[in-house]
Amino acid sequence: MKVTVWNENRHEKQNETVAGIYPNGIHGTIAAFLHESGFDTRTATLDEPEHGLTDDVLAETDVLVWWGHKAHEEVKDDIAEKVKQRVLDGMGLVVLHSAHFSKVFKKLMGTSCDLKWREADDRERIWVVDPSHPITEGLGEFIELEKEEMYGEHFDIPAPDELIFVSWFEGGEVFRSGATFKRGKGKIFYFRPGHETYPTYHNKEIQRVITNGVNWAANRNTPSPTYGNRKPLENISDK
Amino acid sequence: MKVTVWNENRHEKQNETVAGIYPNGIHGTIAAFLHESGFDTRTATLDEPEHGLTDDVLAETDVLVWWGHKAHEEVKDDIAEKVKQRVLDGMGLVVLHSAHFSKVFKKLMGTSCDLKWREADDRERIWVVDPSHPITEGLGEFIELEKEEMYGEHFDIPAPDELIFVSWFEGGEVFRSGATFKRGKGKIFYFRPGHETYPTYHNKEIQRVITNGVNWAANRNTPSPTYGNRKPLENISDK
Amino acid sequence: MKVTVWNENRHEKQNETVAGIYPNGIHGTIAAFLHESGFDTRTATLDEPEHGLTDDVLAETDVLVWWGHKAHEEVKDDIAEKVKQRVLDGMGLVVLHSAHFSKVFKKLMGTSCDLKWREADDRERIWVVDPSHPITEGLGEFIELEKEEMYGEHFDIPAPDELIFVSWFEGGEVFRSGATFKRGKGKIFYFRPGHETYPTYHNKEIQRVITNGVNWAANRNTPSPTYGNRKPLENISDK
Amino acid sequence: MKVTVWNENRHEKQNETVAGIYPNGIHGTIAAFLHESGFDTRTATLDEPEHGLTDDVLAETDVLVWWGHKAHEEVKDDIAEKVKQRVLDGMGLVVLHSAHFSKVFKKLMGTSCDLKWREADDRERIWVVDPSHPITEGLGEFIELEKEEMYGEHFDIPAPDELIFVSWFEGGEVFRSGATFKRGKGKIFYFRPGHETYPTYHNKEIQRVITNGVNWAANRNTPSPTYGNRKPLENISDK
Repeated sequence: MKVTVWNENRHEKQNETVAGIYPNGIHGTIAAFLHESGFDTRTATLDEPEHGLTDDVLAETDVLVWWGHKAHEEVKDDIAEKVKQRVLDGMGLVVLHSAHFSKVFKKLMGTSCDLKWREADDRERIWVVDPSHPITEGLGEFIELEKEEMYGEHFDIPAPDELIFVSWFEGGEVFRSGATFKRGKGKIFYFRPGHETYPTYHNKEIQRVITNGVNWAANRNTPSPTYGNRKPLENISDK
Repeated sequence: MKVTVWNENRHEKQNETVAGIYPNGIHGTIAAFLHESGFDTRTATLDEPEHGLTDDVLAETDVLVWWGHKAHEEVKDDIAEKVKQRVLDGMGLVVLHSAHFSKVFKKLMGTSCDLKWREADDRERIWVVDPSHPITEGLGEFIELEKEEMYGEHFDIPAPDELIFVSWFEGGEVFRSGATFKRGKGKIFYFRPGHETYPTYHNKEIQRVITNGVNWAANRNTPSPTYGNRKPLENISDK
Repeated sequence: MKVTVWNENRHEKQNETVAGIYPNGIHGTIAAFLHESGFDTRTATLDEPEHGLTDDVLAETDVLVWWGHKAHEEVKDDIAEKVKQRVLDGMGLVVLHSAHFSKVFKKLMGTSCDLKWREADDRERIWVVDPSHPITEGLGEFIELEKEEMYGEHFDIPAPDELIFVSWFEGGEVFRSGATFKRGKGKIFYFRPGHETYPTYHNKEIQRVITNGVNWAANRNTPSPTYGNRKPLENISDK
Repeated sequence: MKVTVWNENRHEKQNETVAGIYPNGIHGTIAAFLHESGFDTRTATLDEPEHGLTDDVLAETDVLVWWGHKAHEEVKDDIAEKVKQRVLDGMGLVVLHSAHFSKVFKKLMGTSCDLKWREADDRERIWVVDPSHPITEGLGEFIELEKEEMYGEHFDIPAPDELIFVSWFEGGEVFRSGATFKRGKGKIFYFRPGHETYPTYHNKEIQRVITNGVNWAANRNTPSPTYGNRKPLENISDK
């Protein structure tokens, strides 16, 4: 399975704290643990030509992982649209943390995708609410992160097809932290944690969830619907 | 609309604290504010003949509100089954707090309906996660209860048809506090708050939610499906 | 409740058959039966300034009914966007027949909204699959239309929040004909029938469904979420 | 992965037509193609001691396939209850055709599971309505069966977590033919076709769906929730 990890890669260049936590970039860290799990993994970033997302790269990508935050608006509209179409055609999409506000996710959801937030070192507990879901494979009942940015409800998304995780935050909020959506032939997994100033993507349980999410999101040769004008049954098959 | 409020009515007889908070019983308090909202309201309790749920009472009930806790096992199987059938036939059901473990709710859900709990005066914040839902009419973004019993995930229910509220608890837990389910022609609303030692059902916002829930759960003359052997189309209507 | 019925209103001007069936336009027929049901109803059409959807009109509209077919592309992008925002803010939306391809519906769904179709006088049977839903009030088990345009699966929409009707077509297809979606504070009902060359909107059962749909889609004073930076609990309420 | 195929195995003993189509029983045919797909497969039938479903067998079963029709009532209550509990604990369940009326499925659904039916050699077209779902792997847009028993809506089940297939029948009906449900840690797939007098389980596409369903239903080491009384966060981890 071929996985492309896309990252804005700006905080890492501009902020020493972030660069210290992720010396190879957030994409580098994520690509490394996905590679160790056996995926054929590459990376792509905002400042590459076509943001690293050429037609060839997208055509060869089974699952795209997306991290962005401060430069959503710099993603070109035609590329965002192309990524969306590729999802509808069956590419899996794992949307991380502040990518809730990415053009691609907002186009696919049809809502504002807005939320509450706070950068105050809140303790976070990510509770499993669907213990049948393969994305929870290998986990305990919850994941605890000592410090993270808070995201709070209301999270303006469509009701998810599946709700897997709900987060508790020390400061008084809850958040639907892990949710799946299907759009066309594409499967989408949103997973909340991962503010750039915390070492969240080095956490083994978080890595496990993202790895499980990539596995889940991959399309496995499902049918390609056809659309448009159709003859009635009698003309299709002479049985 | 005719509403029947059912209550186990045992804590009120055995515990002075509870009797002090609910001198007319939990059912009395709930029936009173529903009556004020314009519903034709009656009550029924465990120790009445047939638990107060005769065929006539059930036939005349549009929405049944259910509170129970320590005596779930004393509810007779045939009456629990009769109530379940009446829900499938279109009676609305509002399931409160510890009634998550009632025979009727468990039969309708098909799961254990188990959960975590703690009696430790946790502060609770009940967050609205579906601000389009009529059950949230007249509310703000959350309801805060200074002290309540904690209920925590995993709550072993089927994925709700609609998730409306998620609770935050001071001690570190979250809970899917307001959820709807449809079974047959019946609409079911589960709402978490209401431990007997707290004055929760005197809270105006909680009353609003229960009132909205009763309104939502009422069936409004929807079709009665028929089942069994059927002739093909050509014999039904002359093509 | 204030309802605005929007119609492209082109077929009626250009095609005698359509003009014969709907001498006051499809919007005129729909507005008339909604008015009879007690709604405060107005109409708006494509060729009016701002397509008849000024800020004032939208602000005063509780539920918008939308019919369009051949001129989706003539709807201005900024107006489609404005309508979408108004839905997220709580305006109900009833999307009829070929409006599956309208800009507003596609923006809200995030998918292609494509489907199969055939104009061949197929008999259609619209089966109720959710007999608990208020949109089915007053109906029987199915609605039969002697002749209609066929729409067939796959219908490229997100999994609906609720699936209410499934259509059977004589020529061999099925279609998810009645489905609800919630986006932000807005409630959306898609209902399939209504090709312009058939008298479908004169059918009393179809009128009943659309009337029920308008009633269901209206937002009833639900909470307005706030978004952005938040202080922790301790700073919000000094309890 | 270990799969147990359970069959009532009565029609095969009493009806020559059925015995001719399934000389090794319906269970034999299903077990054979699942074995060929690489599963470790065994069978169990009604007339064996404990219906072939001893504690050991259930403990070792990852996915149980269930076919029953005329002898649902002969399945002992305690065994049906034990199977249900095992599903809640994570055993996958694939429910075929007339097993919609099995004790196990009805207990897990909480509804009557009733439907319409006709034995009249209707042509059936099973349309894919969710082309992202792994259960559709390797299929085309629909499966056509020349002759089958008709099942028609309303099918009295809870709204499925996922709706994958909808059937069209020649005689005028539709049916939600492929649907998934999650209960506890268990995943359930209901798949409609397979009346005993037709060679449906010899059809390669039907075999593909059942094989995909078994793969999908298997639980993969997801968390085991704990329930009951809990201490608050401060006592669990030193804040």
